[in-house]
Order: sequence, then structure tokens, then C-alpha cells
Amino acid sequence: MNEDINILILSCGTRNKIVQYFKKELVGKGQVVATDCSELAPALYDANKHFIVPKMDEEGYLDTILSICKESNIKGVFSLIDSELSLLAEHKQKFIEIGTTPIVSDYDVVELCFDKYKMYKFLVKNEFKTIRSYMDKEEFYKDIEKEVINYPVFVKPVKGSASININKVNSKEEVEVLFGQFDNLMIQEFMNGIEYGADVYIDMISGEPVAMFTKEKIKMRAGETDKSVSIKDEKLFRLIGKLVKKARFKGIIDIDIFKVNGEYYISEVNPRFGGGYPHGYESGVNIPKMIIENIKGNKNENVIGKYEEGIYMMKYNEVKIVRK
Amino acid sequence: MNEDINILILSCGTRNKIVQYFKKELVGKGQVVATDCSELAPALYDANKHFIVPKMDEEGYLDTILSICKESNIKGVFSLIDSELSLLAEHKQKFIEIGTTPIVSDYDVVELCFDKYKMYKFLVKNEFKTIRSYMDKEEFYKDIEKEVINYPVFVKPVKGSASININKVNSKEEVEVLFGQFDNLMIQEFMNGIEYGADVYIDMISGEPVAMFTKEKIKMRAGETDKSVSIKDEKLFRLIGKLVKKARFKGIIDIDIFKVNGEYYISEVNPRFGGGYPHGYESGVNIPKMIIENIKGNKNENVIGKYEEGIYMMKYNEVKIVRK
Repeated sequence: MNEDINILILSCGTRNKIVQYFKKELVGKGQVVATDCSELAPALYDANKHFIVPKMDEEGYLDTILSICKESNIKGVFSLIDSELSLLAEHKQKFIEIGTTPIVSDYDVVELCFDKYKMYKFLVKNEFKTIRSYMDKEEFYKDIEKEVINYPVFVKPVKGSASININKVNSKEEVEVLFGQFDNLMIQEFMNGIEYGADVYIDMISGEPVAMFTKEKIKMRAGETDKSVSIKDEKLFRLIGKLVKKARFKGIIDIDIFKVNGEYYISEVNPRFGGGYPHGYESGVNIPKMIIENIKGNKNENVIGKYEEGIYMMKYNEVKIVRK
Repeated sequence: MNEDINILILSCGTRNKIVQYFKKELVGKGQVVATDCSELAPALYDANKHFIVPKMDEEGYLDTILSICKESNIKGVFSLIDSELSLLAEHKQKFIEIGTTPIVSDYDVVELCFDKYKMYKFLVKNEFKTIRSYMDKEEFYKDIEKEVINYPVFVKPVKGSASININKVNSKEEVEVLFGQFDNLMIQEFMNGIEYGADVYIDMISGEPVAMFTKEKIKMRAGETDKSVSIKDEKLFRLIGKLVKKARFKGIIDIDIFKVNGEYYISEVNPRFGGGYPHGYESGVNIPKMIIENIKGNKNENVIGKYEEGIYMMKYNEVKIVRK
């Protein structure tokens, strides 16, 4: 029997750093296999082996991925894009049957994350501070009159990725225009505070959060954190621990948080590696290693907060060159 | 006398690759010194030495730069941002007097590049195909009636960087609103074609173009080329050669070009390293080496077109980590 730990990274896109980190951790232990539907996804070329696959919504996509898992003797699989997480979570059992562990939360948890209004209700019900949200505009107008909430507010799709189609709105007229044009919108309070990001690993064997890396976002660019600085706050770690337990997250998640007047507000959760994770890895929070340990059947030790504060991360463009 | 070739890169920002390339070329020959007004400019930390300087519009900025040149025995200096090119070009003589060569075109040429309407007039006068442009909206309306031009068109500031404040406009009403709100706007034809970029080096001793790297832009992101592929076309090289001679460019320039129905149209020229230059360097078009040769007093050989076609460049995010 082949004891290699081969990892499959789906829809790798431009996430070369994630591929590189796994490759580094797997030296002498296994290989990194990557897929994407475009041959112009630079991260493909950092993997030991790569496959160009159909688009996710094309027929036979899941079977293609399952075949790759079988043929390449894949022990663990994860995806880097939101829309694929539901697919992986839904068909978890099919992967497990062929000896591949999907590194993803359960289906209902993934779905909760992608429905911003459902998540809002979940957070409120469980007494987490979060960003005031409305799907019913009449309810919103009542709260405007009562001054429970004030303009400007954000109007955005209930299900949406990155910062696509988010409008900052200053009047009832604008709300009416947007609600007249699109379905499934929600109104969200504008948070005037500091934004934080957390990279969290929840051990897939013990179910316990074992790593948390938190950073203050200093500069955003095209919806992504461009510059950040590591911070530590026991209060924030406790809050994240409580959230992780309550929502039953598993594996890797990325949380967006606001701090206003000294209080933390949960904004959203992405149940995958966040775009800013390289900051955590380079600061010593080695989640790829934890994933590999879990796949080998080993529980990970708790290393929450085991990194330094004041470590700055700044992104810049690297290039991948491919001759055809 | 110190024979080291030390190079100063001003406003280095996130252009780590440019700093890295010069450092590589200068191993054993000299150092790369970088400046920026922010200590969160990642490229600073790839240089051999760096300085945090005031903002360009603050008093004493030029003297600060001149002092750095003197103290660090700088032989060549260039900037990576548009607004600083005029400053360098205007005060060329002050740098030359202290033994530092500014790698930049002459002042009037730099100014020509930054005034899009002046550049349009220059191109038309010299019989280069370019993008039909208007500052006079009445003249534009007449041409709309004559069907010389059609909607949609772009309305943009005559002087502007990247894709800031560019509006795609479909009607006279929208043109009127924008012209009512802002001064110094111009109307530009919408080009429905393939976009190309050219990295060109004009030898600072012979005045001849000695390197041209041309690529088709495949994907843009936030106004920058994200993916591109190298191409070669003698017709395009001849066109660029003619333009360079006519406008008397010097040193490094970056040209944006459209191809519509088999014809090349000059869009704009940036008289500095373009954001996509790493594609050229990684394909063997070594402009840092040419700059160093010029500084040493040597002319460069003509290597126009000496690279392969079909080399793909894909950008991804690298991170720079700094502990404070």
C-alpha cells in the first residue's frame, strides 16, 4: 500500500502560496496535485502535478475530480473557491469511500456561511455581536425612523463573493431603485471601525480549534487584504472559540471581524483558506502541517496565539512564466 | 574614487520585481537603494538599503533625494510613479552635476505623455493611428451626427493615471452631466479590439531603440495587466521605432496599443517601467542590464525581437514580511 500523503487542491487559481506551502510540508512525504478549469491559473505550475478540468457546473465535473483522487492516490482534498465548497461538503461521503478526506466543514455549515442573512440570524440568536442586517426594506425604514440605524448603509446580494455588487447607499430612493432592479438583496449597517481577519484551524479529529492567527487589516485592494499586521487579544480568541463551537466549523476557516468602540462584531466567515493566510503561515502558524497531521490520523496540539504581534504583511506581484 | 554602480529607485511601492532585477544585475558591481514615503512599501525591503522620505509634494523633497544621491554615491536614478517623472526630468541637470544620471525622457516629452489630449494631437499631426479624442464636446456631437464616431465612448480626465475616473458613456445626457461636474475632461473613442503592451528601451547614449518586448494582454485586473502572452510582429516594431524617434523618448518606456481590423492604434505612453515589465525580463529582455551599461558609458546592442513568442505571464500575490 502506498503511504504517501498526496494532497489535491481544487480551483487553485492564483493561490500559488498555498500550493507552495503544502509542497514544502510534503517534501519526502507526498505530492501536491492541483486543478483549475483554466490553463492560465498560475498556481497549477507550482504543483507537482496538475490537471485542467471542466468548469464546475459542467456535467461530469464531480466524477472527474473523484477519478483524479483515485488515480493519484489522494489522501486529502480542498478547494480555494466558495462555490466549490458546497459541492465538496455535499459529496463528502463519496470521497471518504475512496480514501480521500475532504477538508471542509459540513454541508449545512458551509451553506450557512454563504447565506449572509441566515448567518446574521444565526449570530443574533446565539448572542454574538454582528452587523445589523435586513432583507425586509420596510422593517429597515422603520428602524431608520427610530434611529436604530442610519445612512449610509450597504446594499448587497444575500449570496455573493468578494466585494461584487456592493452598493453604499445614502437614501430611501436609492434603496428603492436597487430593490426594484434585483432580487435577494439585503441592507447592512455601515461599520465605522477597524477591520480584523482571523485564520482558524479546527482539528478534524478532536473538533477543537487549535490555531488562530489574527491580524488588523491596514489596506484593502480589489476586495482583498493588501497589507496587515498581526495582533493578539485574548478576548478575541475567546469570542472566536465560542463561535467555532456554536457553528461546528471544521478544518480551515477565515473570519472577518470589525471592532467598534472596543467591541468585536462578527462580519462573515469563509469556510476555506482566506486570501490573507500567507501572513499567518509566514508568522509560524502552519496550518498545512496541521492538515497533514490530521490526515495521518494525528490530533494537533493547541497553538492558539503562538506567534508574535507586530509582524507586518505586504503583498506584491510575483510572476509565473510558462512557455507553450 | 568609488567605481560602484549604485542605483536609486524612487517611490518603489510594490514594485519588488524591479528592485530584485537590479539587485541581481548589480551583484558584485553595486547596490540598489530604494525610497518611499511609506514604510509599508514592500519593495523597500528588497533593496540593499532604503530610506523613508517625505511625500513628493512636501517642501525639501528634491533636496532629500539629492542628498541621498550624494551620500550613497548613486550613479543612476529613476522613479516608478508618473507624478515623479516630471520632477526628475525638470531637475535633470542638478542630478548630473553630482554625478547621478536620471533615467528618464526630457521634460517636454514627459509632459506630452501625461496630457492625453496633447499626445492625441501629436500623434495625429505625425500620422500615427490613434484613438479619436475630443476636448470640445460640440465638435464631438457634430461627429456623432456625421457618424464619424458612435456611442459608447469613454469620458476621462486629460491628465490621469491608471483607470481612475474613467466613465463609459452611452448618451449626450451623460456627457453633459460629466462635463458639468468636472473640468479638463476628454471624450475618447471606445476601441473594440485586442490590447497590446510594449516595453521599450531607448539607449541613452546612441538615442536608438535597442530593445522592444511586445505582448498581447489577456486579462486585466484593477487597471493592470494580470495575464499576457509574448508576440512578435515586424510591423509593430517598425511603428514603435518610428514613434520613439518622432517623440524623442529616452530610456525606458511602456506603450499601450490597440489592434482593430489588423491596424495598430497607439493608445498611450508611460515614460517609465510598466507594471507588466517582469514579463519582458523573464523572457530575456534585460533592460536593467542595459541601463547599467549606459551608466558605465557603454552603448547597448540592438536586441529588438530577440525573445520567443508564446511565453505566458501570469501574476500572483507574493508576500513580504517585516517584523517591527
